[in-house]
Amino acid sequence: MSAPAVTLNDVQAAAKRLSGVAISTPLLNNQELDRRAGAQVFYKPESLQHIGAFKFRGAYNRLVQLSVAERARGVVAFSSGNHAQGIAYAAKLLGIRASIVMPADAPKIKLAGTRALGAEVRLYDRHKESREQIAADIAAERGSILVPAFDDPDIIAGQGSCGLELLEQLQARELRADRVLCPVGGGGLLAGVTVACKGIDPAIKVSAVEPEHFDDHRLSREAGKRVKIDGTATTLCDSLMATSPGELTWAINGELVDDFITVSEVEVEHAISFAFRYLKLVVEPGGAVPLAALLQEKLDFRGQTIALIISGGNIDQETLQRCLEKFPSP
Amino acid sequence: MSAPAVTLNDVQAAAKRLSGVAISTPLLNNQELDRRAGAQVFYKPESLQHIGAFKFRGAYNRLVQLSVAERARGVVAFSSGNHAQGIAYAAKLLGIRASIVMPADAPKIKLAGTRALGAEVRLYDRHKESREQIAADIAAERGSILVPAFDDPDIIAGQGSCGLELLEQLQARELRADRVLCPVGGGGLLAGVTVACKGIDPAIKVSAVEPEHFDDHRLSREAGKRVKIDGTATTLCDSLMATSPGELTWAINGELVDDFITVSEVEVEHAISFAFRYLKLVVEPGGAVPLAALLQEKLDFRGQTIALIISGGNIDQETLQRCLEKFPSP
Repeated sequence: MSAPAVTLNDVQAAAKRLSGVAISTPLLNNQELDRRAGAQVFYKPESLQHIGAFKFRGAYNRLVQLSVAERARGVVAFSSGNHAQGIAYAAKLLGIRASIVMPADAPKIKLAGTRALGAEVRLYDRHKESREQIAADIAAERGSILVPAFDDPDIIAGQGSCGLELLEQLQARELRADRVLCPVGGGGLLAGVTVACKGIDPAIKVSAVEPEHFDDHRLSREAGKRVKIDGTATTLCDSLMATSPGELTWAINGELVDDFITVSEVEVEHAISFAFRYLKLVVEPGGAVPLAALLQEKLDFRGQTIALIISGGNIDQETLQRCLEKFPSP
Repeated sequence: MSAPAVTLNDVQAAAKRLSGVAISTPLLNNQELDRRAGAQVFYKPESLQHIGAFKFRGAYNRLVQLSVAERARGVVAFSSGNHAQGIAYAAKLLGIRASIVMPADAPKIKLAGTRALGAEVRLYDRHKESREQIAADIAAERGSILVPAFDDPDIIAGQGSCGLELLEQLQARELRADRVLCPVGGGGLLAGVTVACKGIDPAIKVSAVEPEHFDDHRLSREAGKRVKIDGTATTLCDSLMATSPGELTWAINGELVDDFITVSEVEVEHAISFAFRYLKLVVEPGGAVPLAALLQEKLDFRGQTIALIISGGNIDQETLQRCLEKFPSP
């Protein structure tokens, strides 16, 4: 194996850059969750991060390292929403012009959020246009830097600061995690968190969770190489719709992640309703997959100390309402 | 003025008893909230506390001080919901039998929550029966201790631990609050928080917020004495429906609180929707009144450091849906 793209040192350096800039999201626990899981469970709601998702961490860690000349030429990104908002807010803080290519059917709350942060939004049709091409055209025209959503060492290191924080918060309680549950889309958060966890304490197991119809990570583990799925299936988890693991992220995740777990759409809906009812948190579908895996006992969690990352809270009210109506009681 | 019922020492002692038992809820901030208020705003979501509201703090601080003999005879309380759940959970942790007298029309989530915590629930008709009488009968029959919802020094001191924590969290950021905004129903949380704030830093202003049709505190301040309103009005804020200030709480609040502010029902609905959209928090109506006061600029908050307590998150899904439909956009 060649030298990893991201090391624990990189994650620690990112955490320093983000100190006082990112929100240090809390590590919480809930007796009903403990009771159901038969475990000691802690959850870290990155839904309470700037822009309602962890994506700000990686975006800021990338943009703050641009040179003055690079900053002047602006940045461009494509994203269904959370990366868009992360880039938009980091760019705003740093005085950088940001152009974001977003699918026209992205959740309204993410479109509105990106625009409200001052970014220029270019909509595209997911079925007819290539977001890569549109972004490349903008980048070529202005000399802007294209900032990828996950397959970038600085993005991965920035997301990893979330995992580092989680471990520090457990240490402050004189605890350690037996297992950390993390959502996976393209794998940026997962790779950063995995580097942090395995770097600090190699005995911590890391389990990745993805929606059952976007199980490219599970299939890649089975195949022993990166697999691309066709991606025509629908899922509530708009933030986890990448169709294959990233190259850099897979070099880490394929090697170091202990398990790849899938959850069904209805299991995600149940978890969102549970989060409303017991955790009092607004959680988006992609952010709810680790909670769903825990509540559905996808692994034997009993008697363990489990930490999970609730990665975002940008859910449309219609989707939330549907989940609450489907699961009106515990 | 006679010696106050609760001192800073009492609040500090309560905080010690609650250490490691209550959840140390985070102190959060949000750029959209800062932008709208034109202020540096911090909010403490007690919705993330055990049972989804601050009430656990006072309940535990009261019950943990019962003697072995008192514990054996059980406790009884009456409450529309959050005090009920606070007592139920504190009693469960301490192995005490709890009977709770609740209105039959209390939010379903609060009724279900109280029962799930193992308490015996006795429903009553708010228009025909006296909850005081029912509770007194149960207490007489069993020798149980009746635990009041707010007018009790240990309850007040316990709730005050929330204010103490808030100030410590600000100090950790090398900040101090110019003003603290706190909901007021019977006045237990307000009195505890006020004792903490004025005890630590007398220059901190404390503003109490109540629903416009349950403005018994505002009227009491105007009249210079405790006023009782008729309480037949309806309000979304089921947790703030006390019809007059408590005796002990008013001795503190009437003397020390700087302002009494009211907010309308529609302002509360807007604040709940704002909390969903930007803060990603599930907030109940009574818990949203300080946020409503801030968003509606009820005082001149501009340029100040404002801390507000979001006191609970126990809202029925129908009520949340109504708020989101009424305020679908920012």
